[in-house]
Amino acid sequence: MLNLPKTVLIEDEALRDGLQNEKRLFSVAEKLELVAAIADAGVRRIQVGSFVSPRWAPQMANTDELFAALPPREGVVYSGLVLNAAGLDRALAVGARHLSISVSASETHSRKNTNKSVDAALADILPTIERALAAGVAVRAGVQSALGCGYEGDVDPAQALRIARLYRDAGVREINIADTAGLADPQRVHRLVTLLREALGDEVTLSLHLHDTRGLGLANMLAGLQAGVTVFDAAVGGLGGCPFIPAATGNIATEDAVFALERMGVATGIDWTKLQPVALRLAGLVGRKLPSRMAYIDAAA
Amino acid sequence: MLNLPKTVLIEDEALRDGLQNEKRLFSVAEKLELVAAIADAGVRRIQVGSFVSPRWAPQMANTDELFAALPPREGVVYSGLVLNAAGLDRALAVGARHLSISVSASETHSRKNTNKSVDAALADILPTIERALAAGVAVRAGVQSALGCGYEGDVDPAQALRIARLYRDAGVREINIADTAGLADPQRVHRLVTLLREALGDEVTLSLHLHDTRGLGLANMLAGLQAGVTVFDAAVGGLGGCPFIPAATGNIATEDAVFALERMGVATGIDWTKLQPVALRLAGLVGRKLPSRMAYIDAAA
Repeated sequence: MLNLPKTVLIEDEALRDGLQNEKRLFSVAEKLELVAAIADAGVRRIQVGSFVSPRWAPQMANTDELFAALPPREGVVYSGLVLNAAGLDRALAVGARHLSISVSASETHSRKNTNKSVDAALADILPTIERALAAGVAVRAGVQSALGCGYEGDVDPAQALRIARLYRDAGVREINIADTAGLADPQRVHRLVTLLREALGDEVTLSLHLHDTRGLGLANMLAGLQAGVTVFDAAVGGLGGCPFIPAATGNIATEDAVFALERMGVATGIDWTKLQPVALRLAGLVGRKLPSRMAYIDAAA
Repeated sequence: MLNLPKTVLIEDEALRDGLQNEKRLFSVAEKLELVAAIADAGVRRIQVGSFVSPRWAPQMANTDELFAALPPREGVVYSGLVLNAAGLDRALAVGARHLSISVSASETHSRKNTNKSVDAALADILPTIERALAAGVAVRAGVQSALGCGYEGDVDPAQALRIARLYRDAGVREINIADTAGLADPQRVHRLVTLLREALGDEVTLSLHLHDTRGLGLANMLAGLQAGVTVFDAAVGGLGGCPFIPAATGNIATEDAVFALERMGVATGIDWTKLQPVALRLAGLVGRKLPSRMAYIDAAA
């Protein structure tokens, strides 16, 4: 028997990481309907948007309006992505209670994305995290490109560890390790998670954000589970990545992850069959087949 | 660190399991060219066809002619699939030196496929295996639907174990466990392989034949590696499955498996970048995008 946790939490990011590069803009009403359907399937945490510049991600321009319109729902956490102080101001203004805030572990990726070195990005983001925590907001702090970088290739695990320690010392209790470039493999996942868990102790929960670019998404999830990870990001339909690159695939599909987990006896609280119509609706709205497998499987078979 | 073997053998089945349901018929010349290209990439064992009735699988009708035309190549084993005594006669007539011979562990699948119960199929196949071994042919004996059945759902591991013991007692030294329906998950793979390895000992090598129907192909390979499996089937391009079912995907793609293995430090002897043009040529010939991920990845990135 593989030694796996008994339960995991899935954070669905279809509306944020999934949609952010989509050309077709989704209205607040459409997003509200999708959020409700995802919650109806049993998903307990949903990242619904990001407080970034609308120029950078037009799809995210209605995030403030969306947050203000989200109906409170017992047991469901709505989360948003914040990448700088201005984003936090907006998130606080609309009453967000859970935020993902992150920097990249790769110097090149950091400079390309934010025009700042990793240290300069940290100097900006740590006070932002502390301000969010002081405002009573739950913060999940992320390390992008922690498992490989499209520009640099391998990223030193010591860099992710250094950033994670700064997060922990700032009071963060969940740290998200992101395979932004889809370059992770099970051995790298297992090694980095083990390193971080040993260094940080039980006080910090580790979560994994996995992209399926090279088909290793669920294998990497398995390695994460074996290393003790109990929180995973996923996106309904496997939405995400760049729709203009033929093989670019996005996050692991929530329904695929849930099917795999439940079949292995790991409880998610989610009914993957209820995500099928959501995935198919998303596929219809963006006008193409999505990378999800279980969205297209006969659920009765 | 995940405990993985240092080296594995990949058997490519693109020309057999991959092509067998394709409508477009491939000529012997086309198949020879593909076999050569697959061997050029470093693949050491290639299943090139099956000795079944041409009425059942028209694509396989030129298997005898293909075998007779295959150029001997140092270190490369050409293999064929045999499902009955008549098939063995044909395989021996063209000088095949390595054969896969198999039955299903599922009663319903066995009856649907062969019109025989599992025991009746075994009563036919065991003498066929013994005859092949007596002729000096290497035999890999397979258990189809060992990890789940599209008709029956779960298949009792005791059934696979019973069949495997009969194979071993007949003198077989490699037993192939097939997830014919793509219903396996890592926990089931690990459990069945561990059960079989403990019961059969080191005298028998176990190999895994995995389908990626539910996106778990590489995760199942990872579980197999952790349970000590060192031989895996795959197909260039991820070819296989039924092309008329939208989500039906085939075998794990050889290039995806090789990329994953090499990245984890498991040596395959195969250069996955040399399989890219083969996969793209296959995609062109069958006229659609294949499920492979690495076939469409920029190898320089």
